[in-house]
Order: sequence, then C-alpha cells, then structure tokens
Amino acid sequence: MAVGAGLDSPLEPVGGVRLAAVPAGIKYRDRLDLVLIELSAGASVAATFTRNAFRAAPVRLARTHLDQATPRYLLINTGNANAGTGERGMADASRCCQALAALGGVAQEEILPFSTGVIGQPLPVEKITAALPRALASLQPGNWADCARGIMTTDTRPKALSRSFEQEGAKVTITGIAKGAGMIKPDMATMLAFVCTDAAVAPGLLREMLQEAVECSFNRITVDGDTSTNDSCVLAATGKSGVSMDTAGPARTRFLRELHQLFRELAMAIIRDAEGATKFVTIRVVNGRDPQECLAVAYAIAESPLVKTALFASDPNWGRILAAIGRAGVEDFDLDRLTLDLGGARLVENGGLAASYTEAQGQSEMDKEEIVISVDLARGAATETVWTSDLSHDYVRINAEYRT
Amino acid sequence: MAVGAGLDSPLEPVGGVRLAAVPAGIKYRDRLDLVLIELSAGASVAATFTRNAFRAAPVRLARTHLDQATPRYLLINTGNANAGTGERGMADASRCCQALAALGGVAQEEILPFSTGVIGQPLPVEKITAALPRALASLQPGNWADCARGIMTTDTRPKALSRSFEQEGAKVTITGIAKGAGMIKPDMATMLAFVCTDAAVAPGLLREMLQEAVECSFNRITVDGDTSTNDSCVLAATGKSGVSMDTAGPARTRFLRELHQLFRELAMAIIRDAEGATKFVTIRVVNGRDPQECLAVAYAIAESPLVKTALFASDPNWGRILAAIGRAGVEDFDLDRLTLDLGGARLVENGGLAASYTEAQGQSEMDKEEIVISVDLARGAATETVWTSDLSHDYVRINAEYRT
Repeated sequence: MAVGAGLDSPLEPVGGVRLAAVPAGIKYRDRLDLVLIELSAGASVAATFTRNAFRAAPVRLARTHLDQATPRYLLINTGNANAGTGERGMADASRCCQALAALGGVAQEEILPFSTGVIGQPLPVEKITAALPRALASLQPGNWADCARGIMTTDTRPKALSRSFEQEGAKVTITGIAKGAGMIKPDMATMLAFVCTDAAVAPGLLREMLQEAVECSFNRITVDGDTSTNDSCVLAATGKSGVSMDTAGPARTRFLRELHQLFRELAMAIIRDAEGATKFVTIRVVNGRDPQECLAVAYAIAESPLVKTALFASDPNWGRILAAIGRAGVEDFDLDRLTLDLGGARLVENGGLAASYTEAQGQSEMDKEEIVISVDLARGAATETVWTSDLSHDYVRINAEYRT
Repeated sequence: MAVGAGLDSPLEPVGGVRLAAVPAGIKYRDRLDLVLIELSAGASVAATFTRNAFRAAPVRLARTHLDQATPRYLLINTGNANAGTGERGMADASRCCQALAALGGVAQEEILPFSTGVIGQPLPVEKITAALPRALASLQPGNWADCARGIMTTDTRPKALSRSFEQEGAKVTITGIAKGAGMIKPDMATMLAFVCTDAAVAPGLLREMLQEAVECSFNRITVDGDTSTNDSCVLAATGKSGVSMDTAGPARTRFLRELHQLFRELAMAIIRDAEGATKFVTIRVVNGRDPQECLAVAYAIAESPLVKTALFASDPNWGRILAAIGRAGVEDFDLDRLTLDLGGARLVENGGLAASYTEAQGQSEMDKEEIVISVDLARGAATETVWTSDLSHDYVRINAEYRT
C-alpha cells in the first residue's frame, strides 16, 4: 500500500559512477540486498548521519573513514542494521570494508559502509564478503534502478529520481536513490539516501549544499517520530560533466534548484510509501514568530496518534488537530487569532468552528488521498512545511510482525 | 479489553460529600452521563487543570469560579467536551452553572463545571438543565460507584478507590474516582479525577498536597502523548472526620501515604484501561543526572510507536528501545555504561546485547501482561517511573471509529 504515484521517470547514468546490486542472502534468499556504488577518483563526497545517540557501527565507521580519505566505494547492505552490536559490530563493519579494499585495490578508509534492517543481530560478514566479487564484476553506470530496489526493506516500491539540465552545451545530471518506510523522523538525514552528480563541486561547498538540501527535505518528514540508528545521506559530485558549481552564477542557481527538488521528491516518496500509509499529508504552518515554533506545531500535529488515526478514518476531526496544536508549547498563544484550513475548507477561526464550515466540506477534503492541513498562527512571518502519513491498521500489523 | 484486575474494593462514603449520577441523554440514551458532587459548606477544595493551550470552556470557567468562591457543587457531563466551542461554549457552561445555582440555592461561582467527550460540538444545555432536578433529588453519600460509571467515555471499566485509616479513635477516609482511556498524557492533571476526604486540610496546604500527589501519579502516565483539552483533577477535604492535617505529624504522614497511593492506583487504572491496551508497562529510569533526563528517556520509550507495537506483539525488540533512548536528547551520553533490563532479564550492557541474554528469556518476559522496562543511565542519582500501554489494532480501531 502506498499513496499516489511512484517515481517512475527514467534514471540517467551519472558520469564517474558505476553501481551494482546483488543477492547476498543476508536475510532472505534471492533478494537484492547488497549494493555497491563506485565513485571515480577525485570525486567530492559529503555525508550526513543520524543524530540518534545510538549510532550503528557502520555509521560510526563511515564517519571515521570520511574524515580520513575521499570515498571510492559506498557499500550498502539491507537485512541487518549492524546496530546495538557493540565492539563486535565495529569489527564486523571493518571486516567488510577490508575485504572490499583488498578486492578493489583501494584503502579501507576509502570505503563508506551502510547497513539497514534488523537491530541487534550480528552482521553476517561472510555472506557479504562472499558476494563482493560478483558485485564488483557487475558494476555498471546503468544499474541505478536495481540499486534503488537493492536498498529496500519494508519499502513497497523503489524511490529513485534523475534531474538534468544543459549548461553552456554541457549536460549536468543528478541521480539519487532513497529508502525508508518506518522509524522515520530523520534528524540530519533519512534512513538511507545516495545522490550523485557529475557536476564539479569542491568538498566544503558540497557539504553546505547537502546540509541545505537535507534541511528542506529529509529533515521535514516524519512517519512515527522514531529516529533511526542508521540514517545516512550521501551526496557525491564526480565532476565528469565538466561543469563546475564552485562559483556563484546561473549554473549554480539552476543546480541548487534541481538538487533541492530531487531531495524533496525523494523525501516525499518515502512518506508516500510509509508503513501502512493510506494518506499523504502536507502540514503547512504559516505566520509563526520563528521557524522553531512553526516546526513544533507541525510536528505536534504530524506525530499525534489521534490526528493520525482520524486521518486514517477520513474523519475531519479538527478537535484533535486543535488539541495537538495546544500542546505544542507555543508561548503566549492567542487562540482566537488562529485559523485552521483543511484543503480548501476553513475549519477554525475566532477560537471555534468557522461559521462557513459544513461537515460535507470537511468530509470531502478528508476523503482525498492527499491532504493539506494549513495552520495560520497570525503572529509573525515564519513558515514551515512538514510531510507525514496516517496511522493505520497496517502500520500496527507491519510493526508488530516485522522486527526492525 | 483492559489489562489486569480492575479496582473493585468497596467504596466508602466520605462525610460531607453526597453524589448523584443520572442519564441526561447527552450523547446516548439511558446512559449515566451527568454526575453531581455536593460538598459540605466549609470544605477546602483544590484543583489542577490541563496545560494544553486549548483549554475547554468548562476548564476556563472552573478556574475562574475557583478563584472567586469555595465550591459547593462539581457538575460533570460526558458525551460532549464543550471544547473548541468559542464564546458560545463559555456561555453554555455558564448557563449550566446558573441553572444549578438557582435549583441548589448557591451562587453560580460556587459550582465547578467539567465536561468530557467529543470536541467541537455545542453543549446540549437543555438536556443537562432538564436533568438537574433529578440529580439533586438523587444525591446520596453512597453513590460513588454510580458516579465512577457516570464519568466514563471510552473507558471499559470504572476507576474508583477508597483508602482509610484510624487516627486517635477517629476514622479518616479518602475516596476518589477517575476516567480516561485515550488522549492521555496529563500535564498537571488527568482527564477527570475527583477525590474527596473527610480530613480537615487548610486550602493552601490542600493545593500543595494535590500538586505533589498529581506529580507522582497522573503526571507520570501516557497512552498516546496526546494531552487533553479538558484534563481536570479535584481534591476536596470536608473536615467531617474531625481529624486535621494542618500540622505535621504522624496523622499527616499517614494521610499523605494513603493519598499518594490512591492517586497512583487511579492513574495506573487509567493505563490498565487505556484504549486498546493489552499490556501494562512500567518504565523505570534510574541513575540519571536529574529527573528531567530520566523523564525524557522514559517518555521517549513510552511514546515510541515502534516500541509500543513491539510490546503489542510481545516482541523483545530491544533495538527499538535503544533507538528511542538514543533520540531522547540526553547530553554526553555514554552508551557503553547503560544497562537495559526487561523484567528479570538483562538485555543490554556494554553497548550491545548482554552476554547472558537468551531470546527465550526475553520472550518469556514479553509474554507477560505486565511488563517492566528498566534503564540504568549510570551517571547520577535521579530516578523516575512512567506507566504506559501498548499500541494495538484496537487503539487504531477505537480512534478511527470514535470521534473525540
């Protein structure tokens, strides 16, 4: 079950990037569960990771490696998060990198490891290392779609997207993949997202660009408020297009627009495929004093189990939305100035139900698969948008049956 | 569905308190939905109310009345929360008080109104005022059990309890009732709780006693993190036992012990009857630097949808508990010192799975209806305990079907 259309535009290869997805038998037989991404020498690479205090072993090792060298390979496995695995987990992640380093002729520090799946089980290192030769042999520029499938866990569909544009006769391409469906409230990054471009971007600038892109995309979505131990997001720039973004100008402006759009669409694709989702919900909070209070209100609504079950029931239960706003901790809040809209219907004004509101109006908005909740705080100029899903029987079923 | 035994000890009358519960037809026919509690003249009364910014009309009016006079009547209706009803809601609450004042021969300010039920519908004032004569005629000291049923909404069973003790030949009694099953994360008070004693307590001291009792009971429970617009808790002391608590000594010590125990048992009864609950979960966080970080960790676990669905599934999924702890925002957290126990089983130590742990051990603890999760932060001396329930199919069903 997923809400709305998937991302199905053609995926464009990115110069300097080769990929492979192979079945390593980590948790299931014959499932693509090991993904390898090779970056050309000299690529810039930026990454952000979960701020959960329980960072998984691969996250800790990837951060260390990123400080020591410029990555040549990203090695991603599903089926096992290698999280909560103590010292053994660090050694296991390291062994995978060592094996790939030996086969690929690079230093161990030039490899960033990523894992996603069940927490607290030892990583099956032998299965991974046994599959590495096949992965290396399968590297191709055209394997993005396979890799988008290869990083899925409870996802019901792959999430991948390309954006490109022409700049003074040269074509610049950005292609990215993402995964995630539950334990989703990214804090600096989502579960896993890998985005590559053939633009040339200096490492420091690339880090800034990544932070900015993540801030308006993966850091604005929530399924259940649960931040993963393994969230990671990587942005690599190979420079193979010959177009540099290092000086400000039309090329960079265009590049940033495409980059942000691609990040936002991948983030929204995660929400459309959220565990058990039957609704795709946009929560816009406008005219707050600062972004923080807008986000506090937006997340209080987005993460309220009562609002989420009302969304599942297609019930225009604005009382639950008001109650969520009321506990968001906004200081000196004048309730009588607030307005609350559901799509095109005005629900609340002057501290109570809007005079113009009819139940038929609210029901008609709630019956839609894509729902927009707009809150006007009427006390400032800040605006924030957060995307979320509903809380359905299937969310409970999936998470009662599946062990993350 | 509810977890464990209900509170079924006999309810003792409290001198100076008469009660009635009658069917007023507010939302359903022939259901006890209007409760009247009469307090003798000269009783001390303390009350706490929700800190949700969207306080319902009766909450706002009750606070005003409490500042103006000593209450003689508590008037409680279910089926309609009179919340999100704007100025009309204030007028409606006031009309109910005026009608009762005229019939009862007291001032309007001597009445505290309370409402619980659906948000955003106009209060059916005529139904309430029409039922008042019958309620007044039915007032009896022995009607506590009827009133416990009369304040129920999605509750599946009444919550009422008496505690008493002898002090120098005089008997002191405390009897209380509470309701609440969803939209439960009380902040200064729970949905509704009314506790009366025949001890004599000066008003200022009674307010302190109420705050302290609420802090260790209703302010330590959560079903879904959703704070109600109507939470209210009242403690009244009629003095009819002739025993005063106004000076420190053995009587007051004993009284406070019984009072805290009664509040805790009522709070725990709310969790046992939480919407869709199949588990009663105690979360103890010990050896934190301060109570705030203990509570942050406890609530991060208690409100994690992933932890709650794992509890529903009886799955000893300690990875989800670690992930919740990891996002609780504890500063400078040394994960390697943390220990996590599930009942008698040590799950986590030294940053990973405990060497002694077996899946059979964890499963055996998780199969129980009553589950204790203990987290030792090993960095201070503060301790906090929070009680919660699991997230089941029935929670979704109840909240998708029932409009609060």
